[in-house]
Amino acid sequence: MKCISVKMEVANEQTKTVSRSFTMKGGDGPLSYARNSSLQKGVVDATKEMIIQAIANTLDIDKLCSESSKTFQIADFGCSIGPNTFYAMQNIIESVEQKCHAKHGSSASIDLEFQVFFNDHTSNDFNTLFSSLPPSLPYFAAGVPGSFYGRLFPKSSIQIGHSSSALQWLSKVPEEVVDSSSPAWNKGSIYCTGTEKEVAKAFAAQFENDMETFLNARAEELASGGLMVLVMGGIPDGISLCQTSIGKFYDFFGSCLLNLAKKGLVTEEKVKSFNLPLYFPSTKELKAIIGRNGDFSIERSDEIIEKLKHVHALPDAQIYISQIRAGMEGLIKHHFGKEIAEEFFQSYAAKHVETGFVFTDNACDNTLIFMILRRK
Amino acid sequence: MKCISVKMEVANEQTKTVSRSFTMKGGDGPLSYARNSSLQKGVVDATKEMIIQAIANTLDIDKLCSESSKTFQIADFGCSIGPNTFYAMQNIIESVEQKCHAKHGSSASIDLEFQVFFNDHTSNDFNTLFSSLPPSLPYFAAGVPGSFYGRLFPKSSIQIGHSSSALQWLSKVPEEVVDSSSPAWNKGSIYCTGTEKEVAKAFAAQFENDMETFLNARAEELASGGLMVLVMGGIPDGISLCQTSIGKFYDFFGSCLLNLAKKGLVTEEKVKSFNLPLYFPSTKELKAIIGRNGDFSIERSDEIIEKLKHVHALPDAQIYISQIRAGMEGLIKHHFGKEIAEEFFQSYAAKHVETGFVFTDNACDNTLIFMILRRK
Repeated sequence: MKCISVKMEVANEQTKTVSRSFTMKGGDGPLSYARNSSLQKGVVDATKEMIIQAIANTLDIDKLCSESSKTFQIADFGCSIGPNTFYAMQNIIESVEQKCHAKHGSSASIDLEFQVFFNDHTSNDFNTLFSSLPPSLPYFAAGVPGSFYGRLFPKSSIQIGHSSSALQWLSKVPEEVVDSSSPAWNKGSIYCTGTEKEVAKAFAAQFENDMETFLNARAEELASGGLMVLVMGGIPDGISLCQTSIGKFYDFFGSCLLNLAKKGLVTEEKVKSFNLPLYFPSTKELKAIIGRNGDFSIERSDEIIEKLKHVHALPDAQIYISQIRAGMEGLIKHHFGKEIAEEFFQSYAAKHVETGFVFTDNACDNTLIFMILRRK
Repeated sequence: MKCISVKMEVANEQTKTVSRSFTMKGGDGPLSYARNSSLQKGVVDATKEMIIQAIANTLDIDKLCSESSKTFQIADFGCSIGPNTFYAMQNIIESVEQKCHAKHGSSASIDLEFQVFFNDHTSNDFNTLFSSLPPSLPYFAAGVPGSFYGRLFPKSSIQIGHSSSALQWLSKVPEEVVDSSSPAWNKGSIYCTGTEKEVAKAFAAQFENDMETFLNARAEELASGGLMVLVMGGIPDGISLCQTSIGKFYDFFGSCLLNLAKKGLVTEEKVKSFNLPLYFPSTKELKAIIGRNGDFSIERSDEIIEKLKHVHALPDAQIYISQIRAGMEGLIKHHFGKEIAEEFFQSYAAKHVETGFVFTDNACDNTLIFMILRRK
């Protein structure tokens, strides 16, 4: 479970491109996420050093690893099907080992065994995830199916939780935004632009509700002193999503959906009842929710500026389009049906190349929110 | 990972039919294991009461569940894709809860949380397993990919291990039995009949080696006092497999493979190089291996007589043939190729119905070995 795939450059991370995706296309075919996720690694790379530092500075290894328990359990919430989750988990393990060595000398971690839990929706392609696990793993691997908006693990069993590019995805589209009789009806757009007050309120309430559920569940599952690494898409404070590059991309994507209606392939109502279950908070907003929850201290909080890269020339555009498709196909199929999805992505690809759509013109940058929470 | 699917009746368990399978066919199509495993439930039913009793009598709940750790972890080794693994795990959990209640009163288990690990080969269809998990589970579920002939879990992390109809499957066919230059060359059969001394020795050595690896790994993973429930196909002491109903079935199955060669679809060498990676030990043999390992005490040991049921009349034969196919297709495809597998199962089915093959005539019964081991 990842955010829509968009090619980005992370500020101050020269030549790095990052992107995010949703309900990943399974298997390992040419259109699969497994073959269309190399760009996502940029998020992992961009946050790698920050995680190493955060673990070095804030992890209380003695508290978490007693004499009687030499197992260190890590969970990735919304792992998708790899390989990025493998890089992220590897990085966390190396960071914990470094911390052990720094604290107790180089032999300290010999007895420590790592167990990594890869979590995503039950519909995630765990077969592909498992078959692509790297050989000679330095940890015991397990897959955990189910929504992270609910309990997934026994109490106090996880030492480090991690979630990257997943928490923008709401548990559902707020009902009122697709209800034509509601003042929050989002009739003009497929996402929360931020300009329609009632719509924005409905999405914000859904996000707050989902985050509370997430934090309550993780508060049960994380051991006291355990860390939660949060990486998610965000927007600068005071900016609406439609002013950002991602917003402009969704506008473009929505206009392609409307073309389906113009062609008579679907009704306009069908398009209007489609909303992306996504919400990009500001750091301030997220901090307030974490504060109200009260079970976690915020040990570190950063914003990484994301610069969307304008790609419409082939062959780069083709890579970009495949990324979008790997990320969005599940949603489109679910709402419009399988045949329409095929038609849609073909026309979307053509329009993308044809119009040379530039969604970075006059657009604000998006942000990646990076936070380290500590279970009190 | 289960033994070949054969329809059986368990002695003293009236009207119950049990069977076993291998490298299960994934998905939920008409030929899948998920739709062709109802008979396997007989093994679960036949051992249910024995497991309840064994847990009541031998589980040291206080030792395994301290004040600081209220998580009870159970692993099913060779779980296949359900639903039988779900019944077995449910039964173990209810047994542990009953034990808690009997010992500490009805409120004792309120704080106890169960985590169940479903283990099988990486190629097992975990997607189907996860999507068929019953709703409202009384435990946290996780899938663990990998061979149980190796470590899968952190040290002392499992309270109860379970393996049903899986340990007859060797990690591999002993090399010498398919080597025409070896005295252990198994030229006349596709399985370890037990009559060829050198062949039997090679298979027995492979089984012993595999069981040692299994026991060594489980000895690391099981908490002190933890239980290991073993259920596997066996033969009565002093009997050769070819004298039993299962042996006679393999003879029949092998003759169908030879028909492929007679038809010129494969070479005779190809058939001769095919051996089932299976070994059915006697209880005595298994006990000796467990004794040599030394890490487990045998708390209970039973033999359940299995009566193969003669089924060649339709529609029962069709159910039976589908079961065989769900269990054996992976092996046949792997050795002979996809197209040959299709051809083979069609001709096998025809021959099965046509000849009315009776493999229970003049055959000894097979046994199910049931053991409860306790980690010292």
